[in-house]
Amino acid sequence: MPVNTLTETTPLTLNEGNATSPKGFRGAGIHCGVKREKADLALLVSEVPASAAGVFTTNKVKAAPVRYTQRAIAGGRAQAIVVNSGNANACTGDAGLADAAEMADVASKALGLDADLVLVASTGVIGVPLPMDAIRSGIPRAARELSSDGTAAAAAILTTDNFPKTAATRLEIDGVEVTIGGMAKGAGMIHPNLATTLCFLTTDASVPPAVLRGALKRAVSESFNAITVDGDTSTNDTVLLLANGRAGGPSITNGEALRRFTEGLTRIASELARMVVRDGEGATKLIEIAVEGAASDLEARQAAMTVASSLLVKTALHGGDPNWGRILAALGRSGVEMNEATTDVSFGELLVVRGGLGVSGVSGAAAAVLEEKEISVRVGLGVGDGHARVWTSDLSEEYVRINGSYTT
Amino acid sequence: MPVNTLTETTPLTLNEGNATSPKGFRGAGIHCGVKREKADLALLVSEVPASAAGVFTTNKVKAAPVRYTQRAIAGGRAQAIVVNSGNANACTGDAGLADAAEMADVASKALGLDADLVLVASTGVIGVPLPMDAIRSGIPRAARELSSDGTAAAAAILTTDNFPKTAATRLEIDGVEVTIGGMAKGAGMIHPNLATTLCFLTTDASVPPAVLRGALKRAVSESFNAITVDGDTSTNDTVLLLANGRAGGPSITNGEALRRFTEGLTRIASELARMVVRDGEGATKLIEIAVEGAASDLEARQAAMTVASSLLVKTALHGGDPNWGRILAALGRSGVEMNEATTDVSFGELLVVRGGLGVSGVSGAAAAVLEEKEISVRVGLGVGDGHARVWTSDLSEEYVRINGSYTT
Repeated sequence: MPVNTLTETTPLTLNEGNATSPKGFRGAGIHCGVKREKADLALLVSEVPASAAGVFTTNKVKAAPVRYTQRAIAGGRAQAIVVNSGNANACTGDAGLADAAEMADVASKALGLDADLVLVASTGVIGVPLPMDAIRSGIPRAARELSSDGTAAAAAILTTDNFPKTAATRLEIDGVEVTIGGMAKGAGMIHPNLATTLCFLTTDASVPPAVLRGALKRAVSESFNAITVDGDTSTNDTVLLLANGRAGGPSITNGEALRRFTEGLTRIASELARMVVRDGEGATKLIEIAVEGAASDLEARQAAMTVASSLLVKTALHGGDPNWGRILAALGRSGVEMNEATTDVSFGELLVVRGGLGVSGVSGAAAAVLEEKEISVRVGLGVGDGHARVWTSDLSEEYVRINGSYTT
Repeated sequence: MPVNTLTETTPLTLNEGNATSPKGFRGAGIHCGVKREKADLALLVSEVPASAAGVFTTNKVKAAPVRYTQRAIAGGRAQAIVVNSGNANACTGDAGLADAAEMADVASKALGLDADLVLVASTGVIGVPLPMDAIRSGIPRAARELSSDGTAAAAAILTTDNFPKTAATRLEIDGVEVTIGGMAKGAGMIHPNLATTLCFLTTDASVPPAVLRGALKRAVSESFNAITVDGDTSTNDTVLLLANGRAGGPSITNGEALRRFTEGLTRIASELARMVVRDGEGATKLIEIAVEGAASDLEARQAAMTVASSLLVKTALHGGDPNWGRILAALGRSGVEMNEATTDVSFGELLVVRGGLGVSGVSGAAAAVLEEKEISVRVGLGVGDGHARVWTSDLSEEYVRINGSYTT
């Protein structure tokens, strides 16, 4: 489990941890036979029914588990999540939807819960029926292995990820210690998988469903919706959050308590999202694109995302090439209000473009900045007060090799 | 000069040719010293003032020659185009604009024309002042080398292109033989260049400026605006069209004459645009994405362009991987009306997806289709009558190598 490296100055106590760090959550991860060898089935269970919120892919082609879970979570209550990796159960028609429902049903029986308290997620190959025999026999076995150690669950949701992605934080809200934890999987896309992001967040705070939805929406906007690896949106992307109230504090509904809870949630989601980018296929660098001085925050986000998605920018940063013209060109086509004569660009603290013109004599220093593994590109548009920050990876030959290989 | 391969059944007589094939046009291409060795300065001149129309980059960061030529062409008349390669004269501020104006001025004196009849274009490194000494001495030398052979001009506008791009066609309009020709340069982006598309079209037809603008807009919509190599839009993209009337026919203003002229123009522009894709950096395949059954032509275009721009699709096609799930996922996020249950996908004539589900037993045959150098992907959305066709290239490791290398 990676050390959590958040070091901001706000009074959050950060710790190593994962989705079972909050009180009253248990997890399990096993190999059931969807994949050949690696763990492929995870359970995450709360000891009591929890408030639940979810954010799902905007792709019109939605995998069966996404459609199933969108309905199951509508009431705002859930107690367990069952996840398989190795098969996305996407583009599988009505049979796929029946399989997703059966996954929930089998899990509910194994756990002794109502079926409508079980949420489902899948990731992996698309267009292939789920191997239900493996899933049916696997779920009861996973239920018997539930424990307070969330590491096996975090491993079982991975596909081509190079490392598990977990984080947790403790914070005091209304005098009570509350824990927020989570696990994620990233953009693993070896044929014939799609890039799927899954993230499962947990907390022992007590938060009503409607409030929880708002907090999750805000946290995802600043984290999983602020990253791009290759611009594709999967059929299976899912972020789920369970809040079981076992910390014992009063219900969080508004004011300073909600502000602190949302801040903590956002930081955990951001940390997991950045891990996903860092582990992007073929990625060698984590790149932050920060835009300020835009006409609005929305325009700043749009400008930052256009730069972050530009193949020319991503290949230049991969090659350590301080090619600021590509950044200006991406800003120029982003559709936002901008004027090259008021645009500044910095690599880290080094100003390379002032008022649309290259600063002379800095290309050597700029190339040195771009040798780093974590790069910050800062853009000032000089037309307003809008600002935004997004994260992306570089684009390497390795990305093409991974995604072009025919491996069926 | 590549053999023109248009073979449609309409009664156009196609021939090898280029921008000097129409009557009354001469061209020249020389090395003046912007680049180290290769030709870098081109002239294209009509013996009489011509109707002129242009289409320019929509990027808000526009190179100086784009801004200069947009103003110069506003009156709809021009007689000469001067082009340098090796330096884009972009992000060069007021000095760059003065340099573009001086290029036109020097050319007008060398050619004995009014300066406002000269258009300017540039492509190459950005953020670096034009070497005006080389340009000043080069233009009169190029003027002395003008001839009816357009091949030197076609070579002098290239940057990292692997081959010159020229085409021409003859057609009878109102009983008069009219010729349309052109030359283009493609998406050469070795550091620190940007992907710039330049295209110069000529015709000896007589067409008033307002009509010419409409025909060019239509032709570009079906050609240069229907291709994508990497989704970036350059600061310098320019398509110019001169019509000098030397064929001697009546003025083309409407009806069947205009329809035939626009059709011929569109076919030459399409041929040049496909050459640009075929010569995309690292491209090994020319891929046509045809969408039908969309809610509108506009939605069909949007769906086709989303598929054509998807890195996951482009890498899969590079690797010969019949991964139709990536195509469905791209359609699903394209924002158009679609429903996976009514969506079909074919590779060439081979149906691989019927009603959103994979056709079984065809993956071997599909992989064989994808071995070809020219691939057609056909999508039926089944929701309306809209259709569109766009072209793209595959995405190879070579693309990343070319664009990530630091070569200053």
